[in-house]
Amino acid sequence: MLLALLQANALPLDVRANLATLDAAAHEAASAGAAILLTPELFPVGYEPRRVRADLDAAALPGIRAELAAIARRHGIGLVYSLPAVTDAGDWHITATLVDGTGATLLAYAKVHLFGPDERAAFAGATQPPAVVHFGGLRTALLICYDVEFPEAVRAAAVRGAELVLVPTALAHGFDEVPQLLIRARALENHVAIGYANHCGTEGGVTFGGGSIVAGSDGAQLAVAGDTATVIYARIDADRIRADRGEVPYLAERRPDLYRQWGLG
Amino acid sequence: MLLALLQANALPLDVRANLATLDAAAHEAASAGAAILLTPELFPVGYEPRRVRADLDAAALPGIRAELAAIARRHGIGLVYSLPAVTDAGDWHITATLVDGTGATLLAYAKVHLFGPDERAAFAGATQPPAVVHFGGLRTALLICYDVEFPEAVRAAAVRGAELVLVPTALAHGFDEVPQLLIRARALENHVAIGYANHCGTEGGVTFGGGSIVAGSDGAQLAVAGDTATVIYARIDADRIRADRGEVPYLAERRPDLYRQWGLG
Repeated sequence: MLLALLQANALPLDVRANLATLDAAAHEAASAGAAILLTPELFPVGYEPRRVRADLDAAALPGIRAELAAIARRHGIGLVYSLPAVTDAGDWHITATLVDGTGATLLAYAKVHLFGPDERAAFAGATQPPAVVHFGGLRTALLICYDVEFPEAVRAAAVRGAELVLVPTALAHGFDEVPQLLIRARALENHVAIGYANHCGTEGGVTFGGGSIVAGSDGAQLAVAGDTATVIYARIDADRIRADRGEVPYLAERRPDLYRQWGLG
Repeated sequence: MLLALLQANALPLDVRANLATLDAAAHEAASAGAAILLTPELFPVGYEPRRVRADLDAAALPGIRAELAAIARRHGIGLVYSLPAVTDAGDWHITATLVDGTGATLLAYAKVHLFGPDERAAFAGATQPPAVVHFGGLRTALLICYDVEFPEAVRAAAVRGAELVLVPTALAHGFDEVPQLLIRARALENHVAIGYANHCGTEGGVTFGGGSIVAGSDGAQLAVAGDTATVIYARIDADRIRADRGEVPYLAERRPDLYRQWGLG
């Protein structure tokens, strides 16, 4: 299964421009034979939490989702996009959604671990663990940005059967050890492939580091981006993931009963 | 606090030779000003699980421990050593012990996650989480080899207050991603310093990869060994650990109530 990642600069609250960027990337990725395109955190609205929360009309969200589904359908490619969502209680979450090449929603996830005062001012942290669906021959889960820095979040996906974890992110410049160390370690310690798609350039005064990465289930770097806009590709092989799990069976050799006694969960 | 790590080749069941190697390293490390010397898994008896289990006289263990305490006392240096221990129920565990520069035992730990059929044939996995003691101005815990590849084990030490985790290991050749990726990620994701001391050369038909490492609480490689016998050094700074914890507060921003609901613990 060929995975494509979009790394790009979004324009805060210029949904038109951001969807055009995403549409062009979906065209490119589909033309290259990719089964799915992973895009960065909050890309359609830009990553500027307080401004998005203050100025984005929540009533516009269903229309934006419909346009994203139409992009997937038009190019016949799966798509992971990230948008705010408003709960029945009125809380704003940061979410990610996986739609297939017909535009049908297969999976949704709301970010559990919020990063920093801006996100916490604008959004509420969610509470549900990542769910898993079959996509492109792989059991697939979603996490968002800071979530993946916590081993517990990726473990929660892996123990639910995930083989591929797709992560929209917005990682500021200066944290290269997150993709280079933590993402690769998460992949290895769970024997999952991970795609981690970041912004680049500056949005709302924050400069993003790029460095989007695909890590294989042995921790290898399968693809990596620099600090400018690009689409990168990596082939994810389910047989390889299953072989890695046979060699050093981390998931089978966990001791969850002890972890519970130890007060970890 | 200056930490020293011994990487060396042990001779299975030649306790005399192995204690001489360890004594020379303790002399060298103390002369260099180190507060503590970390040594590899089962180093005094050699890493050959089935043979150690079959041929080591458990009645010899108290005497070996007394000799190790005497080495620490003679050089006035803290020492982490690893030996088998036999429980009241007759189970053999792989353990690690921290003695101070007077030879007094400060901390003991028994390996929870056993690796591979040879270890499981010879030893039983233990069940207690790592405890934490103050040593050299740092809250210090012990883990052993395969334990540290599980994020849960290092997390258990960190949530108990550990700032420094000392890990005797016996890592076979061909698994360089363990020190280079997992150890550094464990250090970063918990903001703990980690020392990981490996064997080198061949013991009982297994070739060890060396690659012993000290990782700082930002994931940086503070010291690393090649594949031959050596003593390596790194200075561990408690203020630096506390500063890292302030920058990205991983430990404070965990969501343990959710992890429990998610069935992780």
